Amino acid sequence: METVRVKTGRRTQLVDVTAAVERVVIEAGVLSGVCYVYVPHTTAGVTINEHADPDVATDLEGVFDRLVPHSGPYRHSEGNTDSHAKAMIVGASQVVFVAQGWLVLGRWQGIFLCEFDGPRERKIFVRVERSKS
Amino acid sequence: METVRVKTGRRTQLVDVTAAVERVVIEAGVLSGVCYVYVPHTTAGVTINEHADPDVATDLEGVFDRLVPHSGPYRHSEGNTDSHAKAMIVGASQVVFVAQGWLVLGRWQGIFLCEFDGPRERKIFVRVERSKS
Amino acid sequence: METVRVKTGRRTQLVDVTAAVERVVIEAGVLSGVCYVYVPHTTAGVTINEHADPDVATDLEGVFDRLVPHSGPYRHSEGNTDSHAKAMIVGASQVVFVAQGWLVLGRWQGIFLCEFDGPRERKIFVRVERSKS
Repeated sequence: METVRVKTGRRTQLVDVTAAVERVVIEAGVLSGVCYVYVPHTTAGVTINEHADPDVATDLEGVFDRLVPHSGPYRHSEGNTDSHAKAMIVGASQVVFVAQGWLVLGRWQGIFLCEFDGPRERKIFVRVERSKS
Repeated sequence: METVRVKTGRRTQLVDVTAAVERVVIEAGVLSGVCYVYVPHTTAGVTINEHADPDVATDLEGVFDRLVPHSGPYRHSEGNTDSHAKAMIVGASQVVFVAQGWLVLGRWQGIFLCEFDGPRERKIFVRVERSKS
Repeated sequence: METVRVKTGRRTQLVDVTAAVERVVIEAGVLSGVCYVYVPHTTAGVTINEHADPDVATDLEGVFDRLVPHSGPYRHSEGNTDSHAKAMIVGASQVVFVAQGWLVLGRWQGIFLCEFDGPRERKIFVRVERSKS
């Protein structure tokens, strides 16, 4: 299991971490298998979406901020219930296949850390499991 | 890794792909393990939900279309930011256990490709990993 | 594959199942690997989020109930289309790494069954796969 560290700069921000995850896969030297990307946080998530046009990530940040209101009424006293909800909607992990030593991503796909309560220092756990057969 | 091809017919459409995924599992000949279903697209996803009553899928299409508005204002110039957002909410992959050579789905569960920017030709990658023990 | 049984008490309820999943991991005796948590239902899901402050789970229940309206108009005649939609948004499975025989959860993370059509008896399937290397 490798840890990738990411510094975020805004409260809600999609940060492209594809290159960092690819580096872990290459160093793992696994030719065929499955790569797991896991975020050990409760106000951040991980997604796979378009990283060709950076406007998509910007738009997605706006969609999520409108989907869950920042101001409640909520019980949780830290004022970041919306961040927890957005993380829950996106999810804490992603799975990507590995073939010929590379991530099998679609043509437009990239992997993004989804910051919902930044700016902060975040961690991503990456694990590459070799196929049995 | 096997590729399943799916033709979608509407902009937003849940397409039941359970039988196609089951075929891959049977051909893989894996008695016990984990099956991964992955969509290499950024405006489509994959989900597991009820496939007994087809009205559920129709309702879910409506829920998602109301959840994220088609018209922004958005920056992304292709007019499908809502499709990217819906794909992000649903997710690009699902995991299902395999036991005795079969998918371990719940009684009402089926696997659906979630088209959010159709009609199009879509691909699903399916991989079956054998258990080690 | 082990089955964990959970009794829920409300229509929408996040139930902390971390200890039950940890028990399966310990009994599996796997030192290094991946733990899969799967819900074989179509109106319940599984998530990973904060379990330190119970107010977070309460707030998240409210967020989901506001996100998808209980009353449609919907076609599905059982009156629980919103439950299916919430389950689809949360997802049917979670993946957590196992290291030194323990779940590798973040400091604030716990695993929750997400009931969206309770009260009911629910099942969770847990599987621990040993790493190959």
